[in-house]
Amino acid sequence: MRSDYTWIYPSHTAKADNAKEDSAYRRLYLGIRQAILDGRLHPGEKLPASRDLAKSLGVSRNTVVTSFDLLVSEGYLETRIGAGSFVASSLPDREMTATATHEALDPTRKATRPARLSQSATRMLAYDRRFPRFRVARPFNPATPDLDAFPFDLWARLLRRSWRAPALDLTIPVDPLGMPALRDEVAKWLRQSRGVKCDADQVMIVSGAQQALDLIARALVDPGDVIATEDPGYEGIRGVLAASGATLLPIPVDGEGLQVHQLGKGAPARIVVTTPSRNYPLGTTLSLARRLALLQWADTHDAWIVEDDYDSDYRYDGPPLSSLQGLDRQNRVLYVGTFSRVLFPGIRLGYLVLPPALIPVFRGMRGFADGVPAPTAQAALAAFFAEGHFGGHVRKMRLSYGERRAHLRELIETRASDILQVLPSDGGLHLCARLLTAKDDVDVQERMVHAQLDCRALSSYYHDKSEENRGNLPQGLVLGFAGWKKNVISQSFDELINLVRRT
Amino acid sequence: MRSDYTWIYPSHTAKADNAKEDSAYRRLYLGIRQAILDGRLHPGEKLPASRDLAKSLGVSRNTVVTSFDLLVSEGYLETRIGAGSFVASSLPDREMTATATHEALDPTRKATRPARLSQSATRMLAYDRRFPRFRVARPFNPATPDLDAFPFDLWARLLRRSWRAPALDLTIPVDPLGMPALRDEVAKWLRQSRGVKCDADQVMIVSGAQQALDLIARALVDPGDVIATEDPGYEGIRGVLAASGATLLPIPVDGEGLQVHQLGKGAPARIVVTTPSRNYPLGTTLSLARRLALLQWADTHDAWIVEDDYDSDYRYDGPPLSSLQGLDRQNRVLYVGTFSRVLFPGIRLGYLVLPPALIPVFRGMRGFADGVPAPTAQAALAAFFAEGHFGGHVRKMRLSYGERRAHLRELIETRASDILQVLPSDGGLHLCARLLTAKDDVDVQERMVHAQLDCRALSSYYHDKSEENRGNLPQGLVLGFAGWKKNVISQSFDELINLVRRT
Repeated sequence: MRSDYTWIYPSHTAKADNAKEDSAYRRLYLGIRQAILDGRLHPGEKLPASRDLAKSLGVSRNTVVTSFDLLVSEGYLETRIGAGSFVASSLPDREMTATATHEALDPTRKATRPARLSQSATRMLAYDRRFPRFRVARPFNPATPDLDAFPFDLWARLLRRSWRAPALDLTIPVDPLGMPALRDEVAKWLRQSRGVKCDADQVMIVSGAQQALDLIARALVDPGDVIATEDPGYEGIRGVLAASGATLLPIPVDGEGLQVHQLGKGAPARIVVTTPSRNYPLGTTLSLARRLALLQWADTHDAWIVEDDYDSDYRYDGPPLSSLQGLDRQNRVLYVGTFSRVLFPGIRLGYLVLPPALIPVFRGMRGFADGVPAPTAQAALAAFFAEGHFGGHVRKMRLSYGERRAHLRELIETRASDILQVLPSDGGLHLCARLLTAKDDVDVQERMVHAQLDCRALSSYYHDKSEENRGNLPQGLVLGFAGWKKNVISQSFDELINLVRRT
Repeated sequence: MRSDYTWIYPSHTAKADNAKEDSAYRRLYLGIRQAILDGRLHPGEKLPASRDLAKSLGVSRNTVVTSFDLLVSEGYLETRIGAGSFVASSLPDREMTATATHEALDPTRKATRPARLSQSATRMLAYDRRFPRFRVARPFNPATPDLDAFPFDLWARLLRRSWRAPALDLTIPVDPLGMPALRDEVAKWLRQSRGVKCDADQVMIVSGAQQALDLIARALVDPGDVIATEDPGYEGIRGVLAASGATLLPIPVDGEGLQVHQLGKGAPARIVVTTPSRNYPLGTTLSLARRLALLQWADTHDAWIVEDDYDSDYRYDGPPLSSLQGLDRQNRVLYVGTFSRVLFPGIRLGYLVLPPALIPVFRGMRGFADGVPAPTAQAALAAFFAEGHFGGHVRKMRLSYGERRAHLRELIETRASDILQVLPSDGGLHLCARLLTAKDDVDVQERMVHAQLDCRALSSYYHDKSEENRGNLPQGLVLGFAGWKKNVISQSFDELINLVRRT
């Protein structure tokens, strides 16, 4: 037995990164463990009595006993009755231990072995979002609502009230489709405001449209299946669909929305993903004739339609348009929406209205994929609906956003009509404007980053961004207006226009 | 033009299911729309002036104007200046409209066309959980903590405080890995209590262990890859792994945990999923020699290890055992845990500690799969940690659960030692006991359902439940004790034993 053991107590060394946050017994435990693993303490070696070790290290005997106990539990030490504590003799031999602990420190070895990703992840990550990332929302971001106008004080009170003495469906939620009270409210609201034909059983609460699309792709798509998406459209959707191994079939959008007749070309799509109320980002509404034709097409080809109704609450020329789902008599439409835009992004709640036949499938799959949806915000949102705050907030915001939108439109028309032309649309949180000059919109987008403006290139929303095709893509800017006061919009617009003119 | 239009206002008919919740304009809109779609109003047909229609229906003129406006927006009506409103002449022809609306009503047609699911969903759903489902947690459920002991009043106050004037990382969260303040706290706690080597950057907040495993399978597994899992093990894990198309390789567990040497048989596994602190449900700890051998094996075979540390906070004979991850010098371990058991299931928060090389992959994938983790409960949990409540709660629960566990163990040993034998384990929220009689444990489980007892069959946790293999499976019961007071445990245990003896 050695006479000095202070070297196994790493609080005395500079190496102990986490010394401050570790308790004394833990530091001693780690020191002895490391000494055993790297061979400084040998298998079978006897350790001093706890009393002696405590004295020599200047710690309490209890500290030593606790660390010895843990080392025994974990198999590093063994005690022989009446004889004391020993380094375990049954440890793997030195050589092996050394391999497991030291070889990796050769940096060249690690660098040559990058992680092999799955095909699914590789396909998904190929659709990296092509937009600048800001740490906080910057002017013209198209997905930012007016956060100053949201009643967070009320929201916080609803959270507290729901959780002070929570019901069992909050503390131990069991239904992967979500909280019954919220599903009731969502179904009622979708029937009233969008003409969605559904009852609460069909509503699945999700974290947002992204999760809804992910679950849909996983439930219904096999590698090689064709999924038709709108062109232009939201890049985040393409990534999540591509992960399933599907072939994406971009379908052009014109003044009447998705060109349904183009679905007939090539292999028939298994799923058509569309934004009938308002194409993202153009703002075009799918015409009635095309709605009926699309439903007919889906029925003939045994296909599903995903209706992504991402911000139809905000229509400024009248009530929200009725959903495509409401016209569907064949139960072929999966209806998707989110509360991110209508309330605030951090709420992380959305909904997926399922055809009845798919309810058990999605319930089962969701249980495996991520269990049940988090109930914390669901409880508050159900109360927010039940007490009438939801309807009130939407009405108030519709007025406010309508004014901000008119303001931005006027700025464009009076100050930049030689550069930008607003495309027609009747709602949403952004305007889409064509660039009338020969500027490259991605170049404009990049320049705006330095001015901390999140103004996005229209061409980035198109499917084929290859070098050969870039010249064919419409050039324009997507300009969100909802999250900023009129004076901020004015000022940001000045910066934008000055930068565009100068380049 | 007709003289009577009352038939287009469905509030007067019995058919209007949602008449009560629909506003007057919406009922009129729906009535006219339906009449157009099913051909009762013809393309080009003139409608009465809004004033006249209002009078004949007994509604305000504004109601008629609003519904006409919406019908025009949606393409059902068109207005000709000075001439009034007409059913759109450009509607798809009658025949097509009729197909889209009536043919589906033939019930035989629908019944013959079941939804085709993806291979991934089919594989997943084949692993339906084999346990009874109760609407609320019933005695002996192994995943239920003591909800009466959780400080929900404090929790509700923390929620309110976080959300009254929320920071931007709550209202517009941007990092798919989660809220920085919580990731800091989790990293600190995992370093201190489990010896996990990590900093906050490596921590991804997830909704639970289930989502962590789902993301891991999607990122790293291709169809045909082999994933080794413990046998017995948690069925929910198998389903989510099977979805990726992987071949599951069950590895037996003995008194030292996973039989690492069995990994060498057959095609090498790409991932090994293990519960080193305590096998689920047996409770066995993976020995030190096997830990080192497993790390060595993973390094040799370029494999990943998933360490599922599902409830290691509750060890009753001393501090929690150190993690396998803390021994790993090769960055091969993905460390998974959940707050469901240590706090309450409805919190829906867990963590995944990633090797540094995988951080960008998981960040990108998570963004596509479900965006960013919901911040509502994250904010409260970060405060719960920062103010020291977390450590206090765990210490308090460890004492209380230790007593409940001792109580259940004593009941088994004094009252049912002829029927049940407790298997050794040093922690967790349940005991696992072998059935000493020739009873079939699945049969016992089913009988308990009628007594509203959620006591689970040990054999159900094994991989091969085929008829031929059933006879080889150990028979036993998994008995959770954490969620019930001692008198409830006593009473439920009496019922259990009486039922077992009587069958």
